[in-house]
Amino acid sequence: MAMIEAGFKEETGLTHECGVFGCIAAGDWPSQIDVAQVICLGLVALQHRGQESAGIVTSEGYNAKSFHVHKGMGMINNVFNDDSMKKLKGNLGIGHTRYSTSAASEEVNCQPFVVHTAHGALAVAHNGELVNCSSLRKMVLARGVGLSTHSDSELITQALCLNPPDGEINGPDWPARIKHLMQLAPLSYSLVIMQKDRIYGVRDPYGNRPLCIGKIVPVKLKDGRENSDDEEEEGWVISSESCGFLSIGARYVREVYPGEIIELTQNGIKTVSIVQRPNAKPQAFCIFEYVYFARSDSIFEGQMVYSVRMQCGRVLAKEAPVKADIVSSVPESGTAAAHGYARESGIPFAEVLCKNRYVGRTFIQPSTRLRQLGVAKKFGALSENVRGKKIILIDDSIVRGNTIGPIIKLLRDAGAKEVHVRVASPPLQYPCYMGINIPTREELIANKLDSIKLAKHVGANSLEYLSVEGLVQAVQHGIKHKNSAVGHCTACLTGIYPEKLEW
Amino acid sequence: MAMIEAGFKEETGLTHECGVFGCIAAGDWPSQIDVAQVICLGLVALQHRGQESAGIVTSEGYNAKSFHVHKGMGMINNVFNDDSMKKLKGNLGIGHTRYSTSAASEEVNCQPFVVHTAHGALAVAHNGELVNCSSLRKMVLARGVGLSTHSDSELITQALCLNPPDGEINGPDWPARIKHLMQLAPLSYSLVIMQKDRIYGVRDPYGNRPLCIGKIVPVKLKDGRENSDDEEEEGWVISSESCGFLSIGARYVREVYPGEIIELTQNGIKTVSIVQRPNAKPQAFCIFEYVYFARSDSIFEGQMVYSVRMQCGRVLAKEAPVKADIVSSVPESGTAAAHGYARESGIPFAEVLCKNRYVGRTFIQPSTRLRQLGVAKKFGALSENVRGKKIILIDDSIVRGNTIGPIIKLLRDAGAKEVHVRVASPPLQYPCYMGINIPTREELIANKLDSIKLAKHVGANSLEYLSVEGLVQAVQHGIKHKNSAVGHCTACLTGIYPEKLEW
Amino acid sequence: MAMIEAGFKEETGLTHECGVFGCIAAGDWPSQIDVAQVICLGLVALQHRGQESAGIVTSEGYNAKSFHVHKGMGMINNVFNDDSMKKLKGNLGIGHTRYSTSAASEEVNCQPFVVHTAHGALAVAHNGELVNCSSLRKMVLARGVGLSTHSDSELITQALCLNPPDGEINGPDWPARIKHLMQLAPLSYSLVIMQKDRIYGVRDPYGNRPLCIGKIVPVKLKDGRENSDDEEEEGWVISSESCGFLSIGARYVREVYPGEIIELTQNGIKTVSIVQRPNAKPQAFCIFEYVYFARSDSIFEGQMVYSVRMQCGRVLAKEAPVKADIVSSVPESGTAAAHGYARESGIPFAEVLCKNRYVGRTFIQPSTRLRQLGVAKKFGALSENVRGKKIILIDDSIVRGNTIGPIIKLLRDAGAKEVHVRVASPPLQYPCYMGINIPTREELIANKLDSIKLAKHVGANSLEYLSVEGLVQAVQHGIKHKNSAVGHCTACLTGIYPEKLEW
Amino acid sequence: MAMIEAGFKEETGLTHECGVFGCIAAGDWPSQIDVAQVICLGLVALQHRGQESAGIVTSEGYNAKSFHVHKGMGMINNVFNDDSMKKLKGNLGIGHTRYSTSAASEEVNCQPFVVHTAHGALAVAHNGELVNCSSLRKMVLARGVGLSTHSDSELITQALCLNPPDGEINGPDWPARIKHLMQLAPLSYSLVIMQKDRIYGVRDPYGNRPLCIGKIVPVKLKDGRENSDDEEEEGWVISSESCGFLSIGARYVREVYPGEIIELTQNGIKTVSIVQRPNAKPQAFCIFEYVYFARSDSIFEGQMVYSVRMQCGRVLAKEAPVKADIVSSVPESGTAAAHGYARESGIPFAEVLCKNRYVGRTFIQPSTRLRQLGVAKKFGALSENVRGKKIILIDDSIVRGNTIGPIIKLLRDAGAKEVHVRVASPPLQYPCYMGINIPTREELIANKLDSIKLAKHVGANSLEYLSVEGLVQAVQHGIKHKNSAVGHCTACLTGIYPEKLEW
Repeated sequence: MAMIEAGFKEETGLTHECGVFGCIAAGDWPSQIDVAQVICLGLVALQHRGQESAGIVTSEGYNAKSFHVHKGMGMINNVFNDDSMKKLKGNLGIGHTRYSTSAASEEVNCQPFVVHTAHGALAVAHNGELVNCSSLRKMVLARGVGLSTHSDSELITQALCLNPPDGEINGPDWPARIKHLMQLAPLSYSLVIMQKDRIYGVRDPYGNRPLCIGKIVPVKLKDGRENSDDEEEEGWVISSESCGFLSIGARYVREVYPGEIIELTQNGIKTVSIVQRPNAKPQAFCIFEYVYFARSDSIFEGQMVYSVRMQCGRVLAKEAPVKADIVSSVPESGTAAAHGYARESGIPFAEVLCKNRYVGRTFIQPSTRLRQLGVAKKFGALSENVRGKKIILIDDSIVRGNTIGPIIKLLRDAGAKEVHVRVASPPLQYPCYMGINIPTREELIANKLDSIKLAKHVGANSLEYLSVEGLVQAVQHGIKHKNSAVGHCTACLTGIYPEKLEW
Repeated sequence: MAMIEAGFKEETGLTHECGVFGCIAAGDWPSQIDVAQVICLGLVALQHRGQESAGIVTSEGYNAKSFHVHKGMGMINNVFNDDSMKKLKGNLGIGHTRYSTSAASEEVNCQPFVVHTAHGALAVAHNGELVNCSSLRKMVLARGVGLSTHSDSELITQALCLNPPDGEINGPDWPARIKHLMQLAPLSYSLVIMQKDRIYGVRDPYGNRPLCIGKIVPVKLKDGRENSDDEEEEGWVISSESCGFLSIGARYVREVYPGEIIELTQNGIKTVSIVQRPNAKPQAFCIFEYVYFARSDSIFEGQMVYSVRMQCGRVLAKEAPVKADIVSSVPESGTAAAHGYARESGIPFAEVLCKNRYVGRTFIQPSTRLRQLGVAKKFGALSENVRGKKIILIDDSIVRGNTIGPIIKLLRDAGAKEVHVRVASPPLQYPCYMGINIPTREELIANKLDSIKLAKHVGANSLEYLSVEGLVQAVQHGIKHKNSAVGHCTACLTGIYPEKLEW
Repeated sequence: MAMIEAGFKEETGLTHECGVFGCIAAGDWPSQIDVAQVICLGLVALQHRGQESAGIVTSEGYNAKSFHVHKGMGMINNVFNDDSMKKLKGNLGIGHTRYSTSAASEEVNCQPFVVHTAHGALAVAHNGELVNCSSLRKMVLARGVGLSTHSDSELITQALCLNPPDGEINGPDWPARIKHLMQLAPLSYSLVIMQKDRIYGVRDPYGNRPLCIGKIVPVKLKDGRENSDDEEEEGWVISSESCGFLSIGARYVREVYPGEIIELTQNGIKTVSIVQRPNAKPQAFCIFEYVYFARSDSIFEGQMVYSVRMQCGRVLAKEAPVKADIVSSVPESGTAAAHGYARESGIPFAEVLCKNRYVGRTFIQPSTRLRQLGVAKKFGALSENVRGKKIILIDDSIVRGNTIGPIIKLLRDAGAKEVHVRVASPPLQYPCYMGINIPTREELIANKLDSIKLAKHVGANSLEYLSVEGLVQAVQHGIKHKNSAVGHCTACLTGIYPEKLEW
Repeated sequence: MAMIEAGFKEETGLTHECGVFGCIAAGDWPSQIDVAQVICLGLVALQHRGQESAGIVTSEGYNAKSFHVHKGMGMINNVFNDDSMKKLKGNLGIGHTRYSTSAASEEVNCQPFVVHTAHGALAVAHNGELVNCSSLRKMVLARGVGLSTHSDSELITQALCLNPPDGEINGPDWPARIKHLMQLAPLSYSLVIMQKDRIYGVRDPYGNRPLCIGKIVPVKLKDGRENSDDEEEEGWVISSESCGFLSIGARYVREVYPGEIIELTQNGIKTVSIVQRPNAKPQAFCIFEYVYFARSDSIFEGQMVYSVRMQCGRVLAKEAPVKADIVSSVPESGTAAAHGYARESGIPFAEVLCKNRYVGRTFIQPSTRLRQLGVAKKFGALSENVRGKKIILIDDSIVRGNTIGPIIKLLRDAGAKEVHVRVASPPLQYPCYMGINIPTREELIANKLDSIKLAKHVGANSLEYLSVEGLVQAVQHGIKHKNSAVGHCTACLTGIYPEKLEW
């Protein structure tokens, strides 16, 4: 692993944090499973991974010449309606929801990408970011392909279409093409790829981005009978996270393994291949998924994200204790850790902030007076819980450091005696090149102020972070099958990247 | 007080739950106070009281011939932008945010209502609903006025313009006109009325709807100095709730008294008149504001709404105890009560549900399978906190009873052993004719199923409500200055209305 | 008649050039006549009179408590669709289309105005402008009515509702109320007023604005049979112009007489009253309707507008002859006059300009180079018809004088040898206070440059106007029943207004 | 030439009638020429060729790494505004406007297509349709390229990027690549292709689609001086038609020759290559451009389109005379031919129809009665010109035959004695596969009814078409340099296609 300084990187249409989802009906077709609806609900449950655009592509199977496609800018609710759902007929399909990366947010970048190839239609949904995008791009262009966008997802799609130069693959052997691509590009991606009658799920060899499998089971009768493991499946789903499985009637099966190509057909799921990491390096699952990005009811590596966050709070209570009247949190991001901190420290938990659900993006240039006021418009203070109190305020992470100050100001205006900030993750110091949209190093407050200066800057009586070791310990605490392959990418905290970056 | 059966009532453009707000700059004009911005932020803090439409009207004062008006359908964020704010110049102004009451939601009903009168421009913002709307309407029509809408707020506006028949008022004596109106219409309303250079705040004699006053104070320096009470004010605000005061740099002063007409000018605030309730009846402040409607950081009758809700949980723990592993809540509405229940019972609080912030209005006709599934799409279960647990689940209220069932289903699917529902308010059984939009009696589940049948219906192991006495006790627990005038409207729970209704 | 200098006049929400339309089914109700569709198509045929907003109000008749209303900003096509049409059930209805008067274009000003009155619902559609708006407004305000807009159409509506002070009318005698209003306000208006079961058509005593009646006849079979006059009618329509009658299956009956109140019921049409002009003044039908405003296939005073325009060209050929190779026009406004000029002069007509139908409002700030170019983007030159030719170019009117210059430039660039402009109307010099939206005197080019200077300014070899006498002669040429009452308002050309104006 | 029956053809995203435009500044860069504005105005003048979508791509020249792109659905006015124009900086650029082909109208099909290639950015705008699209598509797919759309314009773009298999071109020699493509695909296309510092204009060897060149000259002073031919140019434009040249200050230079590749750089224009037609076949310029599609002020083959249309009327008068009172036209499409007919026959021209400019797309399901009425809503009859008259009505073409019937009905309702339809083009009988969107054979009325039956069907007293020979004679009448290569495609009239079609 190489320690790399963040270099220049063009801000183009690169695909950042996203959600991918697929569904295929089991058994005979046409099936009774409402494939497009399952995908739509699956995407709604992944909406926290991207609100910029969404798309669903379905196939009727077998001899389908083309797919049904509906994509658009905006949230799932805005992109899909009854009319568009009706058109999305099919026995299988995939979907995508995409994160807003400012300027490059254009309709042409909406996923899944769909292309007509010499071997039939192909649809690709991608979460992640290629670290060697540049050399792969040169290779594809040199083959005489014109690329419409800067998206590495379009690049992946066209790379899958090209016949490798040595001629070993020139037919419709998609698994071989996928494997070839994985050898060219080691990370980072979770892919859901659809052909006319099957779906491939792919996770990069490092397992950097999440991807898991679920089984659609028959709707239970209301007699409270437990599900039995031998129920026949009605279909299969594949998803970035498991959080939506219950809402679509699916049961969590397992994660896709790092490097695995899994094939979903009407006959079931099958591992096609597992591509190894170079030099037996350990896995590098993104630790930030636990800290911030994933929904708290999702399962990674056999443990619930909420539990990890709570455990972070417990470790934090040990690492950074302070005498206070109450433990509280910035809702809703810090609440799990705050409960953990409260239990470990024995200091009672109490809410101190009330969130205004209706505050949208800032829309008006505030007047000088209002700017000077510097109070958090998004929150109100629960004054009777705050007045005269010494408060430990837990937040999940501090990025630019410009939201915590106004919150502290609000608490002080409401009469707080002391405010001690505890951050349930280590300082964020390095950019991510594997799919998380982190500000530049200059914008990261941890690169400008140490915790003592930051405490002063934001008006806190004290401010402390969880250590990197503490975070890793909290994450690994609940992993059941620990072994030497287990590992996490902490690049944004340590600057240690799993692969040498090239630009 | 008369016990009245709910009768027929036309569903027209009546104004229901709304938020009203006003601001006036103190001292010399033109002032440095950013009046329109203060109102806009004030409305954002009242957005929970209505998301259908919003409007702001400002005046430059003194000889202003006309007002600056901007109104529109939708949330504050959509209605106002930099361009519209620039046009809203002025030294004083009022604003309104309105609740969606289905079909009658049209631009013509946006408030504040602005009219040109023989005595200058007049703007009126109204929260509440006139119980004797019908007779007042007949009176106004008989005077030869054509009414454009069914809104009782337009009715109030035109009634203020008409010279009383006995000729005692025919000039610009607005306080006399307001007082005359209050004698004609005893409840329910909180009004903010603007003339070219002053604002009147009015609360009906029963104090049914909330209204309070704040003082804009100079922006504090960052030395942590406490506010002193003798600071000179920079302006005054009047608002349905106090929750936004900190965010605009205002300090809470007091509530407008039931029946009070208060006048805000550049020279300060002054009580113009206090209209008495007929027959010395007690006050009738809406108890539902505490239970459900108000934001938890607002102050009514000297106490924080959050504290009352927590107290409801405490009383509920005494009234309806049950043995369980954890106390939890339906986020976010039941959380305060759940903490109260947990403290009183000694059973630990733990989160069991994760809310999907991105679920909007249902937009797609779900397939049969998904409908049968009957699971809450809006929530995910925190499975590790749920599996094998006996759970007490606190909700703030049950109205139609169709949301709690799917939540219980979700918890059971995630492995909950027992689910005991505890509702932090009594059963809702009667319609409100004073501004709260409650479904018809037929739709209220409490009129169809008692708590034992309801428990079975929603799949709970048990279900119990807080008693009316318990609620009243919880509400009065924190009121400092109790006296015989204090009283609350519990009509929706008891069918006992403060005034005889007429239709 | 008083000669009046144009004074100050507030630019508020006054209603300018508009189209009004009404339809009622004859015979038994519910009728088979598609009332809302007829009104919609009728408004489409009046769209040239206003593109800002449109509205339709229908009534189911007799005991109807309220009307069906649909109004909106924009063209008919945008305001109405199948959904809105379905809601507009009824046996009678009225509609309105409104001209854009820049800033004051707001939804609140959309017509028809609908109010609830002591005597049932009332809808009013108005074309015209009250010359004594100000005093009427004061009167209405003094009666204690609050007015929402500056629109004189709202004023008319409220004035109709008020009981006259002497108490002679206080019931639902709408004709008496209308007559009372006509005595208070002599001009200018054509009104279509709907009550639950009848429509009143009203033209001001001077007949300043047009209004005519049509009869809906049964659909003819395809045997080529001529219509016979004794056909039974299926319904009645009333409209600003007759141009749409054929397209809705209606036959032209007659104009509403100046000062007439006509009543349309299911039993037929009936003159209720004819209000006389003060002091036996002559009629004052707007001559600008002939010149510019009306559609050329409409009938006024027994003659087709197109024929009058052609006659203007004939008179112009006599008044302002010039030797040339061809006569042409600025399409499409000057074409009728050009054909008249060609016939009278014997010089052949030929097209020289090709109109780009797709040029919309100017939307881009043109660069300096393009501005200097000064060529008409809206037209192309038919070069082979232009090169080396002496051209007489007919335009219907010159207002600001900034469109004819670029057209001449275009013709010269295409090789025209001489360009002689002939304007088929006299110079426009005075504002109109009766419903036509004419620029201020300062903007009218005829107040700045005489025809010789204007010719030079626009680059023409010569430029001449039709004389006022010539115009009047052309207009009266085809009127069959001339008598002393016949007269036309030429105020915008002569400054002589039919009534003293008051502001 | 092969006579081919119209076979099955997928209705996909094929590019139909479109307009293409390019502009490059001459001399030193950065130039003073407002390139993006010139293109925008140029597209406005081509708007009649397509109203579905529009796009402009500009380049700053030389070392430009990427282009500035703005594309969108809708008319030019809607797609571009000041903001988008500001971003379109550059010294050269190309634009496109596209025809609506119903369902396949999606944003992804907006042109110009822009791709990143191994040899820099490339933008392509295409008018026409490849007759051998299918085999070219197979070839491109076989090379391992995934195609996003069914558009043959995307196909052209990717085909240009691919290195030919024999390896003769693998560098940035774009002219060689274009020539290679022209050998693969003989027709039909006019292309405007942009590289970072130059524009290529390409017309297929048959010259099927139009393309011409103009020179931007300095803005003339107002002294009326004629342009002299030795003026130095400020830039060059290339356009589907010449109709907009005057409005952007450009002078018509010449057409691009059939088969020519012309290069526009800052140093001027240069013929790079002229690709020959196979077997010395004659040219095949689309005759329908003269009949219907082009704007009447455009120049093709040295003659003005309007003059050709007028000549068609003259020939028609000789071929199909009839005794009548007046000659008239369906505005505006038949007016030129009507004037020709009138002059040749000596029968006076008179207008009989008044067009309602505001009738948009049909938007409401008409009621039964209105459908039975069967009258043209788009027109009004000028009754005084019609009543009692024998009318010759000229239309430019009859396609489905469902618009002329209602017009005749309207004229008869208005009192016409006889209506004789004369069509200024031959019957349309065959589909076009070269870019004109013609209905299926079944929909073409000429394939169902001969002229006698059609006359009866539409209610005319007689109906006659121009003969194919007459049309060809009218078209060739004004061509100055006639030679054996001159020829026109009359496939839609005769079924004789210039090249064998393959599907």
